[in-house]
This record gives sequence, C-alpha cells and structure tokens, in this order.
Amino acid sequence: MPVFLNTQDAGFEEAFLLLLSAKREDSPDVDETVAGIIADVRARGDEAVLELTAKFDRLELTADQMAFTPEEVDRYCAQVSDEERSALELAADRIRAYHERQLPKDDSWTDDAGATLGWRWTPVSAAGLYVPGGLASYPSSVLMNAIPAKVAGVGRLAITVPTPDGVVNPLVLLAAKLAGVDEIYRIGGAQAVAALAYGTKTIAPVDKITGPGNAFVAAAKRRVFGKVGIDMIAGPSEILVIADKDNNPDWIALDLLSQAEHDESAQSILITDDAAFGQSVAEAVEKRLETLDRRAIAGASWRDFGAIITVDSLDQAATLSDRIAPEHLELCVADPDALSDKITHAGAIFLGQYTPEAIGDYVGGPNHVLPTARSARFSSGLSVMDFVKRTTLARMTPAALRAIGPAAECLADSESLQAHGLSVTARLKSLNERDA
Amino acid sequence: MPVFLNTQDAGFEEAFLLLLSAKREDSPDVDETVAGIIADVRARGDEAVLELTAKFDRLELTADQMAFTPEEVDRYCAQVSDEERSALELAADRIRAYHERQLPKDDSWTDDAGATLGWRWTPVSAAGLYVPGGLASYPSSVLMNAIPAKVAGVGRLAITVPTPDGVVNPLVLLAAKLAGVDEIYRIGGAQAVAALAYGTKTIAPVDKITGPGNAFVAAAKRRVFGKVGIDMIAGPSEILVIADKDNNPDWIALDLLSQAEHDESAQSILITDDAAFGQSVAEAVEKRLETLDRRAIAGASWRDFGAIITVDSLDQAATLSDRIAPEHLELCVADPDALSDKITHAGAIFLGQYTPEAIGDYVGGPNHVLPTARSARFSSGLSVMDFVKRTTLARMTPAALRAIGPAAECLADSESLQAHGLSVTARLKSLNERDA
Repeated sequence: MPVFLNTQDAGFEEAFLLLLSAKREDSPDVDETVAGIIADVRARGDEAVLELTAKFDRLELTADQMAFTPEEVDRYCAQVSDEERSALELAADRIRAYHERQLPKDDSWTDDAGATLGWRWTPVSAAGLYVPGGLASYPSSVLMNAIPAKVAGVGRLAITVPTPDGVVNPLVLLAAKLAGVDEIYRIGGAQAVAALAYGTKTIAPVDKITGPGNAFVAAAKRRVFGKVGIDMIAGPSEILVIADKDNNPDWIALDLLSQAEHDESAQSILITDDAAFGQSVAEAVEKRLETLDRRAIAGASWRDFGAIITVDSLDQAATLSDRIAPEHLELCVADPDALSDKITHAGAIFLGQYTPEAIGDYVGGPNHVLPTARSARFSSGLSVMDFVKRTTLARMTPAALRAIGPAAECLADSESLQAHGLSVTARLKSLNERDA
Repeated sequence: MPVFLNTQDAGFEEAFLLLLSAKREDSPDVDETVAGIIADVRARGDEAVLELTAKFDRLELTADQMAFTPEEVDRYCAQVSDEERSALELAADRIRAYHERQLPKDDSWTDDAGATLGWRWTPVSAAGLYVPGGLASYPSSVLMNAIPAKVAGVGRLAITVPTPDGVVNPLVLLAAKLAGVDEIYRIGGAQAVAALAYGTKTIAPVDKITGPGNAFVAAAKRRVFGKVGIDMIAGPSEILVIADKDNNPDWIALDLLSQAEHDESAQSILITDDAAFGQSVAEAVEKRLETLDRRAIAGASWRDFGAIITVDSLDQAATLSDRIAPEHLELCVADPDALSDKITHAGAIFLGQYTPEAIGDYVGGPNHVLPTARSARFSSGLSVMDFVKRTTLARMTPAALRAIGPAAECLADSESLQAHGLSVTARLKSLNERDA
C-alpha cells in the first residue's frame, strides 16, 4: 500500500518531509572499478575496449567490427515492422519540429558608448550518445537524445550501444538512422564512455556525452566530466498527478503505474482535493496492477514510494508540487492552464486529462530526458541548448575605449591587477598623443 | 622564455600537442577533508560553521554575527572612494544591460494534430554566490555572478565571503549592494558551500551555487552537485591573441601579461603571421615584466606556459585557435570580424586592437566567467541562462490524442512498457465508446 496523507492531519508536515527525503536509490560504489577501466582504455585503446566487451558482454569482436556497417544497419532496420517504423517516424518528426523552435538566436548591437557587443551560438563539433543495452534499450531515448543534437548542428554524432551476447535491438538502430546518427558502436559500460571521451584508434573522441546508463556508466560520466561535457546524471523516474474528482480513476491509476513500471525506485504521487477520489484511484491501481506483466516492479515502486495526498484546495496542491519539484507533472483539473501558472518547479507539465504522461515519453514533441530528484528547482530537460555553446563578442572603437576605459583602469587598480590596467592605459595614452 | 613555435618547423605538430596537453595545475587531493567538513556542517549546522571559521579564518563569531547587517554594509561602503564607486556603477550598469538581452522567451503553439505545445522559463528561487577572500577577492566577480542572477529574477541571492582575521574588502560589499544581493555572510571555504547547499539555522539553503574558489571550494561544489546546481569548476585563466604585424608590440605584450599576472598556472599564447613581430612582442613582454609588482607570478606563467606561434596565414591561425578553444581570444588584425567568422570554439572574442581583454574583465558588458581548459568546445560562459530553468508544456485534445496516441501505444508496446500503452488505450477506448 502507498502512503495516504492529508494536509489536515496533525503529522502531515513531518510525513511529507519524509516522503520528500526518501532515499530511493542505493548507488553501488563502483567508482574504483570505473577509474581502472578508464585508465585502461586511455592506455590501451581499442585493445582494452575489446577485452572488456568480451568480458562484460560475452562478445568477441575485432576492432573493425566495433562499428555497425551501413549494410548491417540496413539489414537490422529491415526487420522492423511497418507499424513500428511509422510510429518511430511520427515520433521523430514531432520531436524534431518541437526542438527546431529551441534554436537560440545570435545577437549584436552597438551601444551609446560606441561599443559593439553581442554573442554567437555554435554547435558542439562532436557528440557521443550512450544507449543502454538489454531491457532498458529504448529507441525513444535514442530519438530524444540524438534529434536535439542534430537540430543543434552537431557535425558528428556517435552512439554506443552494448549488444550482450550479440543481441541487437533493430528499433534502436532504426531510431539512430532516423535521427541522422553518424556512427554506431556495439560497445557499452564505462569502457564505451572512456572511448568516447578519450578516443581510441577506431573511435575518434567527442566533446560531449549524453544519455542514460547504469551505475558504471554514471560513474564514468562523472569522471570524464571536464575533459568532455556531460548531460545530467539522471535518477529514478517520478510522476506527480494533480487530479480533481472529475477524472476517471482508472486513467489516473494507469498514469501512476506508467512511472512505477519503469523501476522499483520510481515514485508515483497523486495529489487530489477529494479524499474519496484518491481512494478510488488506489483501488484502480490495485486492480490494474494484477494485470501488468511488470507487476513485481510496479507493485514494489507503488508500495515503497507511492503516495496519495489529499489537500484542501488546488492552490495547496500547487504549493506542495513546488516543494516536490517533480520530473513529470500531470494537471488533470478543470482549468489546467490556470493551475499551471501557479507552478514554478517542474521538468514537464502535461495539461488536462487527455494528456497522459506516456504521450510525452514518445510522440508529444518535448524531450523526455528531464530533471529528477527535485533538480527541476535548478535544471531543465535535455534540449538543443545542451549541444550548442555561446561565444560572447565585444569590439571597442577608440571613442568607446575612451568612454569606458578609465573605469576599467580604476577597477584593475583596486584589484591590484597592474597589467590589466596598463593594457588600457597604454592604448589611451597613445590615442591622446595622436590627438595632441 | 616562452616556447617559440612555427608551423613550418618539422616538429610543430608534436610541440603544439605538448602545449595543448600541458598540465598546468596540480589539484591537491582535499576531497576527504572536504567530505568531513560537509558532513560536519550537515550534522551540527551553525555550530560547525562557526568553529571552522574560527579555525581557518582566525575569526570568532556568534551565529547572529555571521551575516553583515545593512548598517555594517553601509559603513563599509562609505569607505569606497567616489572614483571607485563610479567605476563599479558603470560596470554594473553595462553588465546589467548586456545580460538583460539574454532573458529567454517562453513559447506556445498549436500544431496540425491539435496538440498545444510550448515551454516556459522560471528563475531559480534561491542562489548562493561564493566570493573568495584575501588576494583573489574581486569585486568585479561579484558583479559578474550576481547581476545575471538578479536579471534572471532570482528571488533570494546570498553571498558568502570569508574575512580572514576580520579583514573586509569594502568594494566587495559595495559590488554586492549594487548588484542587489540579499544576504552577505562572512564565512568561506567548504563550510560556506555546505551551509549554502544544506542550510543551517541561520542560513537558509539555496538551489544553485556559483562562483570561483580554491581547491577546497571546488571540491565542495563537486560534492554538493545534485543536491543543488553549480556552475562550472573553473581552471586557471588563459588568453590567446592573434595579431598581425600592424600592432603595437607593447599593447599585445600587456594583454598577454594581464592573463599571466593572475596566476602562475595561467597561460598566454600569441599567434602571429609575422615572426619578427612575434619577436618584438617577446621583447616587450620582458621589458614590461620588470616593471610589474606581480612579476614573479606573471614571469613564471610566461616562462612555463607562454608561447609565440608563427603561422603562414590567418586561416591557419583560426584553425589552431579552434584546437586550443581559448577562454579569451583577442583578434588584433585588420578585419577582425572576418577572422571571427572562422572561429568556432572560444569563450569570448575581443575584436580589434582597441579591445584589450581587460575591458571584458570589468566594463565591456559580457560576462568574465568563461570556460577554461579547452571546455569552450562544449560549454559557455556564465549567463542569465544559468539562473533559469525550462518547464516543457503539452496539452492534447481528444482529437490530438486520436491522431498521435496510436503511435505512442505501438512504441510503448515495443519497449514492453505496458502501463504506458494502457494509459493511452484506456482514453482512446473511452473516446470511441462515447462516439459510438
């Protein structure tokens, strides 16, 4: 059973804080192992990657078999059914259309002092995308990572996807192809992250690595951060549904379960202003749970981390929601836009009862890589912005330097940075002599 | 003497790679110490912070003395000269004007399927800014960190600035006041970072921490990352100047020295298409070095990490520059805009001979917190974007769900996420029954 809370209960605040701080994930300490793998790949390159692939993925490869050839990719893609291909194409088109609107704009202007200022955005030259193998090998995640990179203009996009025992997911390859991925390597784990970051004879190094992975992959990403850029380190998935009584309890139950089925550490929370409705949802969850193939996982998540919170008003729901700062937030209420305006911290908001969060996972358009573990307080989901960087621009005329240079000299002096000041002074002196 | 390279030399590529990979900083391993300090502050709050402040800053405080009172701030600010105050005000105004143009825009649209999509930006609620004490206590850095946060709309901005032996830098307090900082605490080190991240009785926790610091501060920021957001971990400063022969060697020498004087680990590189001009700059550096108060620091940086590279053409200069991906790039050439267009990776570009990098450090307008250590390949300088986050929005109508829902069902099925699919199926079924 999930926890039932009511803001009118005496112990509410304490119980809510407990819910907020529940430690849902035990990260095994693999840092030392990962450090060894990275050092090995840096020292021995391909050779180390191939040995580790044989060991962990039970797959013997030669260096020239690491990458899928275009012919291999086509052969696997041909195994995908027409229905699945169409669905992936629709998803790719919608994700691309959404992300194309995110491209940031350059700017340039000349101000009163005569200084021309501005900035310019350029894409990361090369990016690497980690795709997990096995059960969590999701073609939708390939689209969600690769399309923003390609929309940003990343010239070279490489994917690593382990194929344990040689088992390949054709949908992952098709998603990569639809997204315009340039290179696909059948390697995984910390060794794949190390190869992308430092390069080997076969794999050229990249500048940025994104994508989900297990504890080894996460530890490797943390370690190579600085040498390359990385995206966030994602925690287990979460959903918060705010629903009034005018909802179908079964729909809300399925939305809660669609997070719970991801992972035993996932968290699903319902906030409602009607206690009886909350009870109906709880019953609907139990009923649906019995029918799910993944009922062991979903049931454990719901039992250990699920919650149904009854509030006095939707305003109160918004306040609690901001304290949770959920990754996914569904607003199943009569006026979802009005409620949405009261929310400050959320990765993604799904408005109204016809927008189940699963739509956002696949075909809505917005990215499904979103900030977990309350980090929506300070970070955003994956976007085109993760694959571009800004160069600021400044150009002074002699007149502009005269106007603002003396202030720079003064501040350099106050910070005891003499050469800073002199670099301005020498120019101003020369300008003054020229005028004299 | 710095290293002299020429792209026509046989060993150039090897020597250039050596320059690129030079390890300029030995990070002392303080991680264990820092972990202990953070745990102590989490466990004992104010009490731990006060003890550590007494120990490291030789300053005995009570909890209610941790924050500067408004009266204290005013008293210190009154010590600042009119000239310095005016210079700080000019800097603050220009930095604010530049950053106000960075505010990102919300978007919302309805597509062909009838889905209303978009996103919304909101500020981080509370941010903390670490300001170093002692020699590296720069009021300009206070402006560069605090103004983007306030432009973004951060509601609560707290500064921590250690005051070893009780010595206060009035300019830091004035910069904080001009930037609109809300709270100023006279604490520093890992204990200040821990207090900002986890909160104490006196200091409420923040959501994001930015600002430079020593090895202890950097290690603490790495450790609290995840609990709060952080900005980059900055390395030692760098400048690359590309200059043709029509420049005053003395000006260029001063620009190179204005990085070198920061730190023995700083790096200054000149690329020129005229070997004789490079020689003149080298001589001018030696001459100026003799006159600098910080000649020991600047001289060590120039000797150990400085370089003068002669190239065949400015195109070749641009290519080398992108391989360096410099933090600061000065283009002192006849047509700096044309050369700038050939550059992809740089934190900030200063165009033309009247734009010494020092202008950018203080009064130009763009931020001086910039990506170091080749990270301009994948990251940007500090900006308003570091203090906002995006919430994506999606709203389906029944018609939109009918149009794109089946593709979501198909993909959920192919990923074996049954509840995901059912959350769409249940709604579509109900819509179809309603129509029947």
